[in-house]
Amino acid sequence: MKLYSLKNGVNPRRVRIFLAEKRMSLPIEEFDMETRAHKDAAFLVKNPLGTLPVLELDDGTLISESVAICRYFEEMIPEPPLFGRSSLERAQVEMWNRRMELELLLPAIDVFVHTHPFWEGKREQVAGFGDLRRRQLIDRMRWLDGELVGREFIGVDRYNIADITAQVALLTARGALKLSIPEDHRNLARWWSAVSSRPSARA
Amino acid sequence: MKLYSLKNGVNPRRVRIFLAEKRMSLPIEEFDMETRAHKDAAFLVKNPLGTLPVLELDDGTLISESVAICRYFEEMIPEPPLFGRSSLERAQVEMWNRRMELELLLPAIDVFVHTHPFWEGKREQVAGFGDLRRRQLIDRMRWLDGELVGREFIGVDRYNIADITAQVALLTARGALKLSIPEDHRNLARWWSAVSSRPSARA
Repeated sequence: MKLYSLKNGVNPRRVRIFLAEKRMSLPIEEFDMETRAHKDAAFLVKNPLGTLPVLELDDGTLISESVAICRYFEEMIPEPPLFGRSSLERAQVEMWNRRMELELLLPAIDVFVHTHPFWEGKREQVAGFGDLRRRQLIDRMRWLDGELVGREFIGVDRYNIADITAQVALLTARGALKLSIPEDHRNLARWWSAVSSRPSARA
Repeated sequence: MKLYSLKNGVNPRRVRIFLAEKRMSLPIEEFDMETRAHKDAAFLVKNPLGTLPVLELDDGTLISESVAICRYFEEMIPEPPLFGRSSLERAQVEMWNRRMELELLLPAIDVFVHTHPFWEGKREQVAGFGDLRRRQLIDRMRWLDGELVGREFIGVDRYNIADITAQVALLTARGALKLSIPEDHRNLARWWSAVSSRPSARA
């Protein structure tokens, strides 16, 4: 088994944190955003969309999409459960993971792709859309702060994949977009401090 | 148990097709895109993001996000399996459902929201982004046509939620965007004809 990953990639980070929580390690081949060898024909055979990460099983089966890879490991290594323990919890984790993707992670990636100089000439940029997404992201950080009143983790009472998704979204916001958690977002800041101090956050 | 839905809504349609495949029916309360009562305070208590569908369980528990609702019903009514039957199949269905969301459904919704007169004054529109997404959508329809060579369904050998997601994406493309499957996309057209003739397609 082997994981194809991307150095400093947002989605590969989700999978690395997930694997660290499962105390799982496996061989990793890292690609690079500058050299972009994952856009070459040799790799497009493995994933025609050219996205990373991609998991290759021992029989050559290929699984792309971060959450698909995480879900595969969840079934291989059930403890600790990161997708919920009961039917209801699994639905709630799915709901919150999607909210974190749609409301935080995709907006953060859109701001990065559409406004950051790194992507000039590499991807088509629509600055007006980047600005719209930046405002959405700021608005949703306030919303999430309210949702975290009296809650330790996102969605259920146990660290889960929705926390991981929110973590990488806010890492992207802080790193690539210079958008930190505002001081008056006390619940979000408390949650951030807790999840960032887990050993898996260094994965 | 009760489902809050949206008349002609793209995501509610996914859930309705899913429920029809499970031969499940439940009380549905329909909202309307014109009157937008799901953006009123009375409904925002149920889902502060104001999105539909939302499932309300008998004890008042609320589950939003289409795929979270579908996953809940998958566990309640395992047959026919629409998320895959084995660990590997479940990872593959997750992978393909996400590809259908990220490569087809979200671009189709973006073109609709950013370029259609219906949304003028209701949502902030960035026409240049809508144009970019239209080109992506056309490109991805060609890609999917190639992926469907020799395949009856998307991702695994059985109708599944990735098929449903692709169905509603192409319904949106055809209905709201006047973007039909090009004639030379023979595999996609064959698949479309097969999935559209299932009784659930009328749900």
